[in-house]
Amino acid sequence: MLKVEKRKLGRNAMMLVLAQDSEAAGVLNELDQLSWKHCQGKVGSMELQKIVAAIETAAKRNGVVESGLYREMHALYHATIEAVQGVTRGQVELGDLLRTVGLKFAVVRGNPYENPQEGEWIAVALYGTIGAPVRGLEHETIGLGINHI
Amino acid sequence: MLKVEKRKLGRNAMMLVLAQDSEAAGVLNELDQLSWKHCQGKVGSMELQKIVAAIETAAKRNGVVESGLYREMHALYHATIEAVQGVTRGQVELGDLLRTVGLKFAVVRGNPYENPQEGEWIAVALYGTIGAPVRGLEHETIGLGINHI
Amino acid sequence: MLKVEKRKLGRNAMMLVLAQDSEAAGVLNELDQLSWKHCQGKVGSMELQKIVAAIETAAKRNGVVESGLYREMHALYHATIEAVQGVTRGQVELGDLLRTVGLKFAVVRGNPYENPQEGEWIAVALYGTIGAPVRGLEHETIGLGINHI
Amino acid sequence: MLKVEKRKLGRNAMMLVLAQDSEAAGVLNELDQLSWKHCQGKVGSMELQKIVAAIETAAKRNGVVESGLYREMHALYHATIEAVQGVTRGQVELGDLLRTVGLKFAVVRGNPYENPQEGEWIAVALYGTIGAPVRGLEHETIGLGINHI
Amino acid sequence: MLKVEKRKLGRNAMMLVLAQDSEAAGVLNELDQLSWKHCQGKVGSMELQKIVAAIETAAKRNGVVESGLYREMHALYHATIEAVQGVTRGQVELGDLLRTVGLKFAVVRGNPYENPQEGEWIAVALYGTIGAPVRGLEHETIGLGINHI
Amino acid sequence: MLKVEKRKLGRNAMMLVLAQDSEAAGVLNELDQLSWKHCQGKVGSMELQKIVAAIETAAKRNGVVESGLYREMHALYHATIEAVQGVTRGQVELGDLLRTVGLKFAVVRGNPYENPQEGEWIAVALYGTIGAPVRGLEHETIGLGINHI
Repeated sequence: MLKVEKRKLGRNAMMLVLAQDSEAAGVLNELDQLSWKHCQGKVGSMELQKIVAAIETAAKRNGVVESGLYREMHALYHATIEAVQGVTRGQVELGDLLRTVGLKFAVVRGNPYENPQEGEWIAVALYGTIGAPVRGLEHETIGLGINHI
Repeated sequence: MLKVEKRKLGRNAMMLVLAQDSEAAGVLNELDQLSWKHCQGKVGSMELQKIVAAIETAAKRNGVVESGLYREMHALYHATIEAVQGVTRGQVELGDLLRTVGLKFAVVRGNPYENPQEGEWIAVALYGTIGAPVRGLEHETIGLGINHI
Repeated sequence: MLKVEKRKLGRNAMMLVLAQDSEAAGVLNELDQLSWKHCQGKVGSMELQKIVAAIETAAKRNGVVESGLYREMHALYHATIEAVQGVTRGQVELGDLLRTVGLKFAVVRGNPYENPQEGEWIAVALYGTIGAPVRGLEHETIGLGINHI
Repeated sequence: MLKVEKRKLGRNAMMLVLAQDSEAAGVLNELDQLSWKHCQGKVGSMELQKIVAAIETAAKRNGVVESGLYREMHALYHATIEAVQGVTRGQVELGDLLRTVGLKFAVVRGNPYENPQEGEWIAVALYGTIGAPVRGLEHETIGLGINHI
Repeated sequence: MLKVEKRKLGRNAMMLVLAQDSEAAGVLNELDQLSWKHCQGKVGSMELQKIVAAIETAAKRNGVVESGLYREMHALYHATIEAVQGVTRGQVELGDLLRTVGLKFAVVRGNPYENPQEGEWIAVALYGTIGAPVRGLEHETIGLGINHI
Repeated sequence: MLKVEKRKLGRNAMMLVLAQDSEAAGVLNELDQLSWKHCQGKVGSMELQKIVAAIETAAKRNGVVESGLYREMHALYHATIEAVQGVTRGQVELGDLLRTVGLKFAVVRGNPYENPQEGEWIAVALYGTIGAPVRGLEHETIGLGINHI
């Protein structure tokens, strides 16, 4: 069973990327109280691999995952690809389909289940815009991927 | 160009489904001030068509779309399918892959762009859990679809 | 190299399903002059398997393919699935996504290439409407699949 | 309900790309009588984005869509991607899968429904060849996308 | 780095389903020497969910995964869906596309990497036939999914 | 009906890529006794088109297919793309998703069915590793495609 509201991994990650101005402080405070690892960043590109790489690099640099451990990189990778599917909705492609994204991302790692044996899980949240490579010809887009780690 | 923060169509729809307890009141208040149409609901099923139908029915009953107008139903339909892609991440199937969802949904219709000629757009936001048809064997999932209407 | 215009397999199949009233006569005449096998039919359903079965049955009954030969059924099957992908555009699903189709179909078998060693090929063409299971809430849709046989 | 035969948006767009020699004249005449906007062109590439860009550019230059209006570009974009799915049948990729296309395209914009409130819709039709990047190792391919605009 | 040949998780799982008569004995002996958990079974169906359920049930009954632990069921589920993608090649559907499968499956759980911190991984291997629901109109098919657990 | 074990086209192709050291000799001997054409090779890349090209080139050079005949190249192409789908499991992309493969491949052409009219079929088997472009951050992957030729 999912733990109480404040331990919802995906919701917390999504609130970080949706937060405006000072709103993120409350979420970050909760995450720190839970001792959950997390990181945030921004990335814009027509190349999907740059989105994947930016998230990976931020997660490694901030100690959310251990870079030398394939097990952890594998968990993060699949969570990232799942989040990207929410953003691209159908064809997991950007530049090849003549579109670009500008995204905020957040990665959160914690133990969201009551049973301690369920261990740690990781969430990748994305929020921003997708559209033509012309300023303003774009709309919002969101994605969330969750995996055991 | 996207209008100021409070006019972000997708963000508003997503905040409605992520809201806990009294949090939704603020978003609903903003939507009413903007005179944007909206509706919310819950649906759980192993059958995708029931998810699609629940959203469609709620949007029609609450006057967010006009049911007799194919143009509007077409816009809502594609926004819904795009949101479902974020939820299912890869294979747009539930029961056939032995999984089920429990979702909150919100549909918001408004004019998010500064240029009045951009007219109305519609957002469908989904948030809840996806997993095995066994209570507790599930994790969070999110989807957002946006279309011109 | 593709032979002259009149030997274009896919174009001929597509013209059969697009033909109105007496227009088909010209195409059928050309196909008979070429001694190319062909059949036509109509099918409407929310179930994809009924579309696939209707095409298969018509092709077998009209001698376009030999039902006992897996080689021929395999060629027809893949041409059909490819045509269905044009009709469904993204998710190869109908009822699960709460939509239905009403289609005309044509299957044409012939030798469209100048080199006689290229042998026979088969085309499956689809044209009709796709939309909500409500009369009128629908738009046109098209698909074409081609395979060696 | 779809209007009479001559107002079938998708069929008209498809007839333009299938037309040989003087056949297009009849269709163009009908489109002009209906005061429907339209354009045609040819494009060949191993890069999908060039296909998308060629259609977009032709539609803007010929006044079929208004380039500064995201609403219109969004409608055209999705109609184009749907047409491309008929052409690629499964994987929306060309060069990455070592294949290339040579296509005729047509974009038609009009009001195909009897109810004037249904407003304008847009169709993108594609017809040509797909195959290996070697002359002659190719077969025909077709795609049609339709959207409200 | 992947360990020596005999510790190749995917290869071992695949050899189990490809084995004829007495050939499996050698693989099973190696797996037992490594103290790797494993199970095998057969399943035939036009419904994907029955394939997924059969693998899940066998893995639980044979103690390859712990049924009460979502973490383990989640790892097995995704490995299974990945294996099914190799079997279905494109559209993750069976009966809806009028086709059926007859499959042998094997699930193997072990530690294939030299670094002990990489921990346990799980492989799902599938081999059998796919085709029309008519005996003999079928060809071979294979799938392999691997996940950290 | 599929012929006896030794004539299983897909199994033979898969055994060739799974074989270690001297194991392949037995399979090759069987293939030669059956007078079945075959070839093997290795390819590693982040670009899918290089995988497709390597298989195509090897099959042509070893006379498994006749390069000037589109019919044969078309059969091989689709078998290859189907095998690649087992390897990529979901998104038929490598570098765009920041991943790379190192693969052994085998192509086998023969007549696996008892009925001589079923003629020749072709199998493409792939086995190797997929993962991040960092040595060791990878796991095994498999794919098999079969087509009539």
